[in-house]
Amino acid sequence: MAKVGFIGLGLMGGPMAANVARNGHALTVYNRTAAKAEALAELGAQVVSTPRAVAQASEVVITMLTDAESVRAVLDGSDGLLAGGHLGEVLIDMSTISPEQAISLAGHLAAHSWELLEAPVFGSTGPAQEGTLGIMVGGERRLFERYRDLLACMGKHLFYLGPQGAGATAKLAFNLLVGAQVASLAECMALAAKGGIELQTMGEIVLASGVVSNLLQRKVGNITASDYAPAFPLKHMNKDLGLMIETGHALGVALPVTGAAHQLFSAAQASGYGDQDAIAVYCLLTELSGLGKTSPREEGET
Amino acid sequence: MAKVGFIGLGLMGGPMAANVARNGHALTVYNRTAAKAEALAELGAQVVSTPRAVAQASEVVITMLTDAESVRAVLDGSDGLLAGGHLGEVLIDMSTISPEQAISLAGHLAAHSWELLEAPVFGSTGPAQEGTLGIMVGGERRLFERYRDLLACMGKHLFYLGPQGAGATAKLAFNLLVGAQVASLAECMALAAKGGIELQTMGEIVLASGVVSNLLQRKVGNITASDYAPAFPLKHMNKDLGLMIETGHALGVALPVTGAAHQLFSAAQASGYGDQDAIAVYCLLTELSGLGKTSPREEGET
Amino acid sequence: MAKVGFIGLGLMGGPMAANVARNGHALTVYNRTAAKAEALAELGAQVVSTPRAVAQASEVVITMLTDAESVRAVLDGSDGLLAGGHLGEVLIDMSTISPEQAISLAGHLAAHSWELLEAPVFGSTGPAQEGTLGIMVGGERRLFERYRDLLACMGKHLFYLGPQGAGATAKLAFNLLVGAQVASLAECMALAAKGGIELQTMGEIVLASGVVSNLLQRKVGNITASDYAPAFPLKHMNKDLGLMIETGHALGVALPVTGAAHQLFSAAQASGYGDQDAIAVYCLLTELSGLGKTSPREEGET
Amino acid sequence: MAKVGFIGLGLMGGPMAANVARNGHALTVYNRTAAKAEALAELGAQVVSTPRAVAQASEVVITMLTDAESVRAVLDGSDGLLAGGHLGEVLIDMSTISPEQAISLAGHLAAHSWELLEAPVFGSTGPAQEGTLGIMVGGERRLFERYRDLLACMGKHLFYLGPQGAGATAKLAFNLLVGAQVASLAECMALAAKGGIELQTMGEIVLASGVVSNLLQRKVGNITASDYAPAFPLKHMNKDLGLMIETGHALGVALPVTGAAHQLFSAAQASGYGDQDAIAVYCLLTELSGLGKTSPREEGET
Repeated sequence: MAKVGFIGLGLMGGPMAANVARNGHALTVYNRTAAKAEALAELGAQVVSTPRAVAQASEVVITMLTDAESVRAVLDGSDGLLAGGHLGEVLIDMSTISPEQAISLAGHLAAHSWELLEAPVFGSTGPAQEGTLGIMVGGERRLFERYRDLLACMGKHLFYLGPQGAGATAKLAFNLLVGAQVASLAECMALAAKGGIELQTMGEIVLASGVVSNLLQRKVGNITASDYAPAFPLKHMNKDLGLMIETGHALGVALPVTGAAHQLFSAAQASGYGDQDAIAVYCLLTELSGLGKTSPREEGET
Repeated sequence: MAKVGFIGLGLMGGPMAANVARNGHALTVYNRTAAKAEALAELGAQVVSTPRAVAQASEVVITMLTDAESVRAVLDGSDGLLAGGHLGEVLIDMSTISPEQAISLAGHLAAHSWELLEAPVFGSTGPAQEGTLGIMVGGERRLFERYRDLLACMGKHLFYLGPQGAGATAKLAFNLLVGAQVASLAECMALAAKGGIELQTMGEIVLASGVVSNLLQRKVGNITASDYAPAFPLKHMNKDLGLMIETGHALGVALPVTGAAHQLFSAAQASGYGDQDAIAVYCLLTELSGLGKTSPREEGET
Repeated sequence: MAKVGFIGLGLMGGPMAANVARNGHALTVYNRTAAKAEALAELGAQVVSTPRAVAQASEVVITMLTDAESVRAVLDGSDGLLAGGHLGEVLIDMSTISPEQAISLAGHLAAHSWELLEAPVFGSTGPAQEGTLGIMVGGERRLFERYRDLLACMGKHLFYLGPQGAGATAKLAFNLLVGAQVASLAECMALAAKGGIELQTMGEIVLASGVVSNLLQRKVGNITASDYAPAFPLKHMNKDLGLMIETGHALGVALPVTGAAHQLFSAAQASGYGDQDAIAVYCLLTELSGLGKTSPREEGET
Repeated sequence: MAKVGFIGLGLMGGPMAANVARNGHALTVYNRTAAKAEALAELGAQVVSTPRAVAQASEVVITMLTDAESVRAVLDGSDGLLAGGHLGEVLIDMSTISPEQAISLAGHLAAHSWELLEAPVFGSTGPAQEGTLGIMVGGERRLFERYRDLLACMGKHLFYLGPQGAGATAKLAFNLLVGAQVASLAECMALAAKGGIELQTMGEIVLASGVVSNLLQRKVGNITASDYAPAFPLKHMNKDLGLMIETGHALGVALPVTGAAHQLFSAAQASGYGDQDAIAVYCLLTELSGLGKTSPREEGET
C-alpha cells in the first residue's frame, strides 16, 4: 500500500479521497477549508495544515482542484508541495486543465524532480462516492501502470490515452459533449415553453426517446422541478468551455457549436448564474425569450 | 377498424404502414415510386395509382413525407387527395414540418372541409418496424382521441401537446437535441483526433460515460467504423435545423447553439455530404482541421 | 411621364414618393394610416382609399412595405391592387424580401397578368429624402430599362443584378454587412466598457480608424449619447437576418457569423428592444455582461 | 532626443522604426532576420546582434512582435533585454497581446526593475510608413507623457486608455471590428456568388453604400482581383480573435458574433489559408458552398 497525499476535498475530491482511505492506503490530506478534512480523519487519514506537510508524508500526491492556477498555488511557496517533496515524487493531477497547462505543469514539476501523471475524471458526485468514475490518463505509461491500483480505488473505467496532455485533451473533448447536452436541452425546453408546450410533457418526450442519457435525465428533472442547486456549477462548465476553445485554437480544430455554447454560458455566468447548476443556462434563455425570470439569481457576476 | 390511406412508404413510412395493415385496418396506399408499395400489397393493402384514389377509399389518410412541399404536392391537383376526399375527411400528417406550416396546412385543408391532425414522430427505422415510435400530436383533442388506437399501431409513446402547431413545435424542439448530439460528437471526435487520441478509445470513453444515449452509441459506431450510410440523411437534419431556426425566430426564442449547428450542417450539405448520414458532419470537421478527407463524398451539393 | 402609384409612405416610402412627385410624375398614393399621405397631397399627389384605386389610376405601382406578407396584403382581396389593375401592369416592389418570396410573388402576379420588378434599396432616411439611394434591381431587363428614369428619381446608384430574385439576393447580401457592423460594434463597446475603457474614447478610436463607415459613425454616436431612437428598428434588422439565413439555407451557403448575429438580435427583440434602433443590441450585451441596464425597454417582445 | 532601442522590424515594425530614426532619435535595432535591419542602418541606426546589446545602448526599448511569447523570447536568457538593461529602463510593447498577458509581462519586468508601457496600434503598412498610425496606450500616465513625442513619430492618433491592460483591451476591442468586417464581407460575397450575382457588381454596391470603410474598400478589391497576398495574414487575425475570446471570458462579456468569426478563421487557418490575407476566409466559404476552390492554398495548416 502506498503512502498517498490528497489535496482538494470538495464535492468530488472528498469522496474520492475517502475511497483511497477505505482501500487501505496511508492517506495524508490537506484542504484550504480545514472542516472538509474531518470526514477523512474519521477514516484514519492524517490531516495536516500545509501542502508541504502532505508531500513530506507521501510518495505520491493527488490533486483535485478547480483549475491550473489552484494546482500551482499548492505547489509553490515555502508551504507548498515542492518544498516538502522527495526526489522522484509523483503528482497525479485529477483536475480539469488544458493539455497546454498539463505540459507546462509537467515542465515546472520536472525542474524540481517531480513527475506528473494527468488523470482527469468523468462522472459526478454519485460515481465519485461509489468509486466508479472514469479516469483519463496522460503521461508516462510506467507511471500509469505503477498507480493503476491506486486509480482503481476511485474509478472503474481507466483509459490510458498517451503522452503528457493526452489525458487533458480527452477530458476536454468529453466535456464538450456535456456542455452541448446541457446547452441544447436548455434551448429545447425554452423553445417548447415559448411555443406553449407543458415542460412536464416535453420532459417526458426527451426521457422516452433515443437521445436520453443519464445526464439529460437529471437535467430534465432540474428544469421541471426548478431546482438549480449546483451538481456541476455553471461557472465551472464555462471555465471548461474556455479551455476547449483554447485547445481547439491551439490544435487547429474548428469547434463552432462549442464556441456558441461557450458564449451562451459566458452570458449566463456574467448575468449572475455562475454558482447555480450548469442547466441554469435555461433560466437565461427564458429571460432572453421574454418569458421572465424562472430562478432567483445573484446580481452581477459569480 | 377504420378505412385508412397511407402516402409515403419510405424508410420510415413503409414499416409504419405495415404496422397499420397488420393491426387489421383496411389500408389503401400510394407511393410515387410504385415498387415501394409491393411489400404492403403482400400484407393485404390496396395499392392505387393516385393520391385521389387513396382519398376515395379512406376516411382518414396518413402522410409521412419529406417536407411541407411534398405534403402539398399530394394534396393539390386533379389527382390529389383533395380531389378525392369526403366531407369531414381527416389528414394525419406525420412528416416533420414547422408549426407555421402546420397551421397553414390546416387552413388549406379547412377550405376543403378536411381536418388536420399533426403527428410527427421520434425514433428511427428500428422503432418504426417494431411499432414503438414516439408520436407528438397537435390539433383537436377529439381527433386525437378518435385516432388514438390507429396511432398506437405505430407508436407506443403517444403525447397530446395541444392545438394545431404544438405537435410540430415539440418535434422540432426534440430534434434540436438530435442535431446538437450529432454535431457535438463530431466536434468531440475531431478534437480528439487532432489531439492524437485514438478514435476507438475516445469512443469507449463516451460509451462508458453518463452522456451516452442510444443515439450517441450508434453514431460513435459510425465514426469508428467510417460508416456513413444514411440512417438519417444529413440533408434532412439540415432541413429540420432550418425549420427550428425559423420557428425560434417566429416565436421569439434565441437558439444560439442550434444556430451554429445549422450553419455547420449547411456547410456539410453544400460540401457534398447531404446524402450521407448526419454524422458525416464529422468528415467535414476533419477536413477543416487539415486532417484530410475521411469519407468519399459527392462533388457539389446533394 | 408615367402614371405612378405608390403604396407604403413610411420613414423611407414617404420621401421616396415625394421625389417621384417632384419629378413630375402623375402620382396616386395609398397608405394604411391615411395621415401619412397628406404631405404627398401637398405635392400634388392624388390620395385614394384602397390599393384597388391606386391600380386603377396607374400603369406602374411601387410598394415600399415591411415584408412580403404586407405586399400580399395590398395585392389580394376585393380592394386589392389586383382587383384594379390593367393588363400588363407592373409592380415595382422596393421592400426587403427574400429571393424565394420575390419569385413566388412574381408567379402570383403573372397569374393576374402583372409583371414584377424587384428593386430593394440601400441607404437610410437621409438618402431617401435626397433621392440618392442605391437601388438593386432584379427581373426582366426591359422593365429595368423602361423604368430606369422613374427609379432615378429615388436613387443615384442603380444596379441591374439579373433575373427575378437577384435583386433580393443582393439586398440581403448587402444587409448582412449592416447586421455584422452593428452587432460587432455592440460587442466592441461592451468589451471595452467591461474592461474599464471610457466609451467616449473607444468611440474616438473607431472614428479615427480604417474600419469606420458612415454607418459605424452614426452608431458610435448612438451609443455614446445613449440614443436608441429607431433609424432602423431592431425588429426589422432581425427580420432581415432571418431572411438571410433562409436564403443561405436555400442556396447552400454557410453563414456562421450571420447566424450568430441573427440569434443575438432575436434575443434582443424578445427581450423588449424590438422597437428601438438596431444598435440597442448593445444594451442587451451590457445586461448580459452584468453591467446593468443601459436603456429603458419594453417588457416582453416588440 | 532619447536613446531608443527597437526590436521587430517586420512589415509594421520596419517602417515604424524608420520613422523613429528620421525624427532624430539615437536608434539601436535588432532583428532575428538580420537582413531586415539594413534599411535602418542606412538611416543611421546602429544594428546589434542581441537584444541584450539593444538594452545596453538604450534607455527605452520598443518591441513590435507577433505575440506575447515572442516578447518573452527577447526578454529572457543571457542574450535577452533583461540581461542588458539599466535600472528603471522602460519597455514600450506595441505588439497585440491580451490585457492578461500585458499585466503578466509588467509583473515580470517589474521583478527586474523595468517598467512597461503597452502601446498597440491600429492602421496597416501605409499608415506605418507615413507615421499616421493610431496608438492605444495603457500603463502609468507619467510614462505616456514622457514618451508622447516618441510615440508621435509613429502615430498621429494617441489615446491614453488607463492602467496596465487598458491599451491591450482597447486594441482587441478594436480588432474585433476588423475581424467582423472581414468575415462578414466574405459571407456577403459568398452569398452573392452562390446566388448568381457578379462579384464585380456586388463589390460596387458595397463601395457605393454607407457600410464602406477603408478596410472594406481594400478587401472588396482583394476578392474581385483574387489577390490574397497578406496585408494582414489570416493566422494573425485568428490569433487576435483567440485573444478576444479569452479576454471576453476573463472579463465576463459574451461575444457571440466574435466567437463565430473565431471558429471560421480557425477552420480557414487549419485548412491551409493561414499565410494568405485574412480575407482568404472568403475562399474557404466558397469551398464550403460547393463553388470549388477560388485560391491556391497550402495543404494542411500554416
